[in-house]
Amino acid sequence: MIEPKSMGFWKKLFSPSKTKRRSQAIPFQGELVDQNIYCAQGKQILFSTEREIDVYELEELCDRVGWARRPVHKVRKALKFSFLVVCMWEVWGSRRRLVGFARATSDHAFNATIWDVVVDPLYQKKGLGRAMMQFMIKKLRKEDISNITLFADPHVINFYENLGFILDPEGIKGMFFYDS
Amino acid sequence: MIEPKSMGFWKKLFSPSKTKRRSQAIPFQGELVDQNIYCAQGKQILFSTEREIDVYELEELCDRVGWARRPVHKVRKALKFSFLVVCMWEVWGSRRRLVGFARATSDHAFNATIWDVVVDPLYQKKGLGRAMMQFMIKKLRKEDISNITLFADPHVINFYENLGFILDPEGIKGMFFYDS
Repeated sequence: MIEPKSMGFWKKLFSPSKTKRRSQAIPFQGELVDQNIYCAQGKQILFSTEREIDVYELEELCDRVGWARRPVHKVRKALKFSFLVVCMWEVWGSRRRLVGFARATSDHAFNATIWDVVVDPLYQKKGLGRAMMQFMIKKLRKEDISNITLFADPHVINFYENLGFILDPEGIKGMFFYDS
Repeated sequence: MIEPKSMGFWKKLFSPSKTKRRSQAIPFQGELVDQNIYCAQGKQILFSTEREIDVYELEELCDRVGWARRPVHKVRKALKFSFLVVCMWEVWGSRRRLVGFARATSDHAFNATIWDVVVDPLYQKKGLGRAMMQFMIKKLRKEDISNITLFADPHVINFYENLGFILDPEGIKGMFFYDS
């Protein structure tokens, strides 16, 4: 998960905006998170892999962790062309609210790279980020993707190591292109 | 570029096979590499971004650098779903032979990750790998991809640094998932 403190690198087009809490009244099918992890005040946490989500709701979630605002048309395109989109929803009655998100690019065969892992600050430290990533890894494995990768900020390396990710295996290093 | 010495991590399904040099008689349009870099014995080096290439010719190129043999149906799928496929061809008359290759996955909006960078050993150390990567970066930039990433073996980190890639910016680390 990427949090505000170390967003300097990712934050290229930061434009803060007011946070407004949305909820949607949409008939919803998803996978229920383990009941032991989270279920309170008649609300449940569900995961889905639908990609036709409200882009503004996604950007509001990203705002809540201090991420840079991104052009909506590009976010929409990124959702369309991601291999896997995972949403974590807080659900009560027929309403739901986006409280977590992650997506992966892939060649649909060998490699996947996970991007934009975000959990609403109110839902952090409850094991939900871990559950969302486990859900995602299971989906990628089911698609026979053997190489699941990501780029982790320093303060979340531990989080990913606990999920089974390893750092720089055999000295293989993550690199980013910068225009000179 | 990934070479045999450090292939332990990548080589999950290694099955050595006999190398046979192919060439194709196909009318060909591509971009000519800088004449100063390479042009000898009536042969030229051209780049293309076509993805309908002979998968067996690609696998033979990978054999020549000692890579693991991969299931052809998966290679075909990976080519189809890569965002960008770059081939480097040796061309003479109406014939051509694959001497370099790279591809990138992407969300078509923000991020691209480069995979499978390979140059025929006979064509290494001539500036052609560099030219191929510059061609690739130019294409990705033209598509407005702002975040170009890759995972580099230790012995090619210098090669990528010279192209403008940087290592672990702000401590962001490449990580790979392993089943526990």
